[in-house]
Amino acid sequence: MVRPMLQLDKNRYFSANPEERRIARHLFDLVKDLPLLCPHGHVDPKLFAANEPFPDPTALLIIPDHYLFRMLYSQGIPLESLGVPRVDGGAIEEDHRKIWQIVAENFYLFRATPTGGWLKQEMVEVLGIKKRLTSETAMAIYDEIQDVLKRPENLPRAMFERFNIEVLSTTDAPTDTLAYHRQIKESGWKGRVIPAFRPDNVTDFMAADWQHNIEKLADVSGIDTSSYAGFIQAIEERRARFREMGATSTDQGVTTPFTIELTADQAILLYEKAMRGEATTDDARLFTGHMIMEMARMSIEDGMTMQIHPGVVRNHNPGVYAKFGPDKGCDIPSATDYVTNLKPLLNKYGNETRLTLIVFTIDETTYSRELAPLAGHYPAMKVGPAWWFHDSREGMLRYRRMMTETAGFYNGVGFIDDTRAFPSIPARHDTARRIDARYLAELVAEHVLDLDEAEEVIVDLAYRLSKKNYRL
Amino acid sequence: MVRPMLQLDKNRYFSANPEERRIARHLFDLVKDLPLLCPHGHVDPKLFAANEPFPDPTALLIIPDHYLFRMLYSQGIPLESLGVPRVDGGAIEEDHRKIWQIVAENFYLFRATPTGGWLKQEMVEVLGIKKRLTSETAMAIYDEIQDVLKRPENLPRAMFERFNIEVLSTTDAPTDTLAYHRQIKESGWKGRVIPAFRPDNVTDFMAADWQHNIEKLADVSGIDTSSYAGFIQAIEERRARFREMGATSTDQGVTTPFTIELTADQAILLYEKAMRGEATTDDARLFTGHMIMEMARMSIEDGMTMQIHPGVVRNHNPGVYAKFGPDKGCDIPSATDYVTNLKPLLNKYGNETRLTLIVFTIDETTYSRELAPLAGHYPAMKVGPAWWFHDSREGMLRYRRMMTETAGFYNGVGFIDDTRAFPSIPARHDTARRIDARYLAELVAEHVLDLDEAEEVIVDLAYRLSKKNYRL
Amino acid sequence: MVRPMLQLDKNRYFSANPEERRIARHLFDLVKDLPLLCPHGHVDPKLFAANEPFPDPTALLIIPDHYLFRMLYSQGIPLESLGVPRVDGGAIEEDHRKIWQIVAENFYLFRATPTGGWLKQEMVEVLGIKKRLTSETAMAIYDEIQDVLKRPENLPRAMFERFNIEVLSTTDAPTDTLAYHRQIKESGWKGRVIPAFRPDNVTDFMAADWQHNIEKLADVSGIDTSSYAGFIQAIEERRARFREMGATSTDQGVTTPFTIELTADQAILLYEKAMRGEATTDDARLFTGHMIMEMARMSIEDGMTMQIHPGVVRNHNPGVYAKFGPDKGCDIPSATDYVTNLKPLLNKYGNETRLTLIVFTIDETTYSRELAPLAGHYPAMKVGPAWWFHDSREGMLRYRRMMTETAGFYNGVGFIDDTRAFPSIPARHDTARRIDARYLAELVAEHVLDLDEAEEVIVDLAYRLSKKNYRL
Repeated sequence: MVRPMLQLDKNRYFSANPEERRIARHLFDLVKDLPLLCPHGHVDPKLFAANEPFPDPTALLIIPDHYLFRMLYSQGIPLESLGVPRVDGGAIEEDHRKIWQIVAENFYLFRATPTGGWLKQEMVEVLGIKKRLTSETAMAIYDEIQDVLKRPENLPRAMFERFNIEVLSTTDAPTDTLAYHRQIKESGWKGRVIPAFRPDNVTDFMAADWQHNIEKLADVSGIDTSSYAGFIQAIEERRARFREMGATSTDQGVTTPFTIELTADQAILLYEKAMRGEATTDDARLFTGHMIMEMARMSIEDGMTMQIHPGVVRNHNPGVYAKFGPDKGCDIPSATDYVTNLKPLLNKYGNETRLTLIVFTIDETTYSRELAPLAGHYPAMKVGPAWWFHDSREGMLRYRRMMTETAGFYNGVGFIDDTRAFPSIPARHDTARRIDARYLAELVAEHVLDLDEAEEVIVDLAYRLSKKNYRL
Repeated sequence: MVRPMLQLDKNRYFSANPEERRIARHLFDLVKDLPLLCPHGHVDPKLFAANEPFPDPTALLIIPDHYLFRMLYSQGIPLESLGVPRVDGGAIEEDHRKIWQIVAENFYLFRATPTGGWLKQEMVEVLGIKKRLTSETAMAIYDEIQDVLKRPENLPRAMFERFNIEVLSTTDAPTDTLAYHRQIKESGWKGRVIPAFRPDNVTDFMAADWQHNIEKLADVSGIDTSSYAGFIQAIEERRARFREMGATSTDQGVTTPFTIELTADQAILLYEKAMRGEATTDDARLFTGHMIMEMARMSIEDGMTMQIHPGVVRNHNPGVYAKFGPDKGCDIPSATDYVTNLKPLLNKYGNETRLTLIVFTIDETTYSRELAPLAGHYPAMKVGPAWWFHDSREGMLRYRRMMTETAGFYNGVGFIDDTRAFPSIPARHDTARRIDARYLAELVAEHVLDLDEAEEVIVDLAYRLSKKNYRL
Repeated sequence: MVRPMLQLDKNRYFSANPEERRIARHLFDLVKDLPLLCPHGHVDPKLFAANEPFPDPTALLIIPDHYLFRMLYSQGIPLESLGVPRVDGGAIEEDHRKIWQIVAENFYLFRATPTGGWLKQEMVEVLGIKKRLTSETAMAIYDEIQDVLKRPENLPRAMFERFNIEVLSTTDAPTDTLAYHRQIKESGWKGRVIPAFRPDNVTDFMAADWQHNIEKLADVSGIDTSSYAGFIQAIEERRARFREMGATSTDQGVTTPFTIELTADQAILLYEKAMRGEATTDDARLFTGHMIMEMARMSIEDGMTMQIHPGVVRNHNPGVYAKFGPDKGCDIPSATDYVTNLKPLLNKYGNETRLTLIVFTIDETTYSRELAPLAGHYPAMKVGPAWWFHDSREGMLRYRRMMTETAGFYNGVGFIDDTRAFPSIPARHDTARRIDARYLAELVAEHVLDLDEAEEVIVDLAYRLSKKNYRL
């Protein structure tokens, strides 16, 4: 059989039912060219500060993408052979062409996965590739991408503009100086790249180098963090500096959504214990639960939108962690209870209309059982979109089906791309907009919504809800 | 854009696939005019005893409907402004036109929700409204509904007959005198309104005013409830009186489906402790678990169908509870284990063909994992239909898809509307019958069932299973 | 209405969307005649050793099938009346015609269930029945099947060949002598019937007759099992004998997937305690968790594929168990945690490419939350197909939808029929191949996969993945 060209059908991801497909197409056309709001992600701000050409296809698309190399690893391909850097600086494959060839030969592994879909779209629409990536075409495509990346229109800032990104938020530790953000601002370039405040490295006693981070927090804030009061003050100070650089939101990644209101004395005792290097896992859990409450209080005071991302067992594979460090595809979701854990937080701040608290989940069973019922009641709470492994065609459809009937469309917050892979951003938003169009088309075809209602909702989902809830 | 009229497509909620839609239409037509069996609900019997006109649109449709105002509240609209009565009698909005206007302006929040669908159908089919509810049309529609409600054909009893309700069960505490049921019976009106026996306010030591309820139970039964033996006897006596008023079923709302068989001595000790006002939460859990067993025993003796509704964290929001009381949209589902919890009950009574035990869930993960396998084995156990938040298009489809392959159609019990909102009853049954027709049409189109089989099943689901399992 | 003939539509189980149906048909045609690989099942090897005619329809289709009689039992039909043997040898229905009549009269209970679908297909394609099974046709069909079973082409070995089975694995205890397997081998018949090594009866202290099993293990292996070291050696010896008889895999059925690495001393102490008859439930849990680790070690050494089947509460109904013994439809799934429980095993052996560890689940919530993320990372781990209650049209579709986007197609292992019911094997594989064709057709119609990709994947799912992962 002749291998077809690499092509993107304009009706991809819509239902094959002709009526639904026609309506989906109509709805999608209303939003496909809207600006991209990217209020939550992990793109490195240095990219736009330096604005240098991307080095090569492998460095751009493979080595930084743990979605991609985790799948290859699962089929027995060593991470070293994919150029993933070792913590000890040990030998890894340095020949990026060889790595690209391995990926090409195993690209069938990504059939029907989001990674496969995004990469295909990136290759066609961002990089202009017309051939399928196979064992035979790998080197020719490598060369072609190499050429493309040298062109000025593919410098990071030019891409940012071409992608029609209205605002892109990075995610940054309180100990970060935001030097790159400052550099971008002072460069005169108009691209809006803003930080988001993620305090995990100082609020979680178990974070790597916690005591060192506390010292860095003192340095960067100019506030003595040896006491709990100083620590809180330093956090408030850093939030203020983040806001100056454009930040509108915070984020907390936690193992469970456990929250608790400690007395000042209890918090002080725990903090002092941690400063003496004596904190236990349970102390860390209590203090993190308390700091979620504190962050809510601060958000009410300074108006930043608050995000919580719980439910992930980080670094499940200690062998890979020891060799390659964190974020290597070894984070695994686990069952999460929001109803009991969030109760103290919601009871104290959930009725507060000044607070926007966006809760994410990676445990899909909580969509219809816990999150939709909670968000459909508490004014402060909203539910984040389908996240991480579930930011996929089927995953996003399940999200809409299990969330909408109880929470409605308006207790959600629009799409987030949550990515480190900058060139994949348009493909990710495109996919989300297509799935929303598909879902709404089904509702119209089944006479649940009138067409004019769906026309309004699709714009809300693609643009307005994000703008409003992230206060962009 | 011209806003379309308010209209109900005759094929709404069916699949957009023409073949499936045609078959669904055919199947739905077989049941759409069957009488409504309403064996489980919360309509106030006073409505039919008094048979007075409904006061106004807001009093009829908004203020009593916690599904509706919970969504408005989630978007920051205070409950006071929606006329929800405060426990302390504090000031609330009294102008029902103003409340109606707020609802109209925020009616977009209900897009794709069951509340939105039911209300739309009620307005068209029960109240004859032809315009969409918007900010502009709100007052005109209010006036129109006002007029409609004054007509004799819209008195409660007339509506009951027009809705073609064959039997409607209310839900009543053992301490209830059933005066309204008696009044209805003695009025000569032929409408069959029956009570259901729900003993939570006396079986749960943690119920508000438990000791007072125990005294009321003594009053209403004429039996001394100061001892455990008297308490049990009083419950049996009340069950007998309920049966005299037509009751065919009992219901228990419990936090978990925990069951346990206590010895008589253990039960007595717990009861005495509670009577001294010393019962702990754990005592309450044990006693409730024991009383589920006792209720099963009584059901075997007196033939009443037994229902259990577990898995809801009641009054999750203490702020709203303190101000507005229970049933204000603050009940949140939580993960529920049936396999371990129901084991004592099923081991003792599950093989008993004289018992019909209907188990409900609000944790959808238990459909295919626990409830279908249990109901597909134990003769006594049946699974209640998709309940509460899941009594919706998608929710009912998920129920059928996850339940049928293991439990079959015949370990279910037909639809229940479980509503306080009397005029929404036809819309709720209509939706359920449509979704069942849609599901069966899919099975016929995919050659899983023959058409004549589906024709039989649709009538079973819409009518016969309910009649049989609730012994109507 | 005239009851239609019993017929199987050639497009059954495909989507009713014409485009998807056409593609599904095309894909299914590519695999429908491929040989059947049956690497996991419970067919009795004696069947092929003896090669005697099947006795009668009831003995063949009803009495050994706990899927079937559990449903009848759930509707109040006593197991005695279905001919299920009692442990105490008490009276049961002996008239197989009467039993067949009961099944026929209640056959509507199986509408839309996998059991109903398989049986229908068996009757049409294996037994040549043309009439529907009803109260009226029951006896005529019984006679017809009786005749059919006497023909030489319906002897077990002839059926095996006619079904185009390439290899069929039974499941056998270490204490089994494999006499039937030897007999088959020595008979000169070419049918490949191999054992699989399932050591539960000696690795689980709580297994019925554990101490007796340990003695039998000594007998059959010729190794003294009075010490832990001897026990391990005997297991290794039995694995070697199983491999000689063709075994390529092991299987462990465990309550939870709990794993733990004990020291040799800890293991010895537990084993000695159990030998003294003093082991507790918790001891059994620890030892089983340890033996999973040991089995992984042995698999790395001898190359056998390793399977784990956790999450089932066995014999939930003690009344039925006491009367009728195990495997009577009383095993109920329960919520299962893989992320924490498998961590010790995966941390020690999960990065090992020589190991193939196939993990099954009966808790569907773990597909997208735990199993796909784990299998999409750890090289050793694969996910078994939709299992037990979920080996059904909807169940297999849910499996594909929730597994594929994160784990891809290639961290699965193909279909297993897992059946005791030999004549149902073709129907089971046919159903699985249809559902995979349907799922892939949807992906092609929605432009997620190109057709040529789907053509490759369907063969992988129907044949190649099983061959590779079970090392057939």
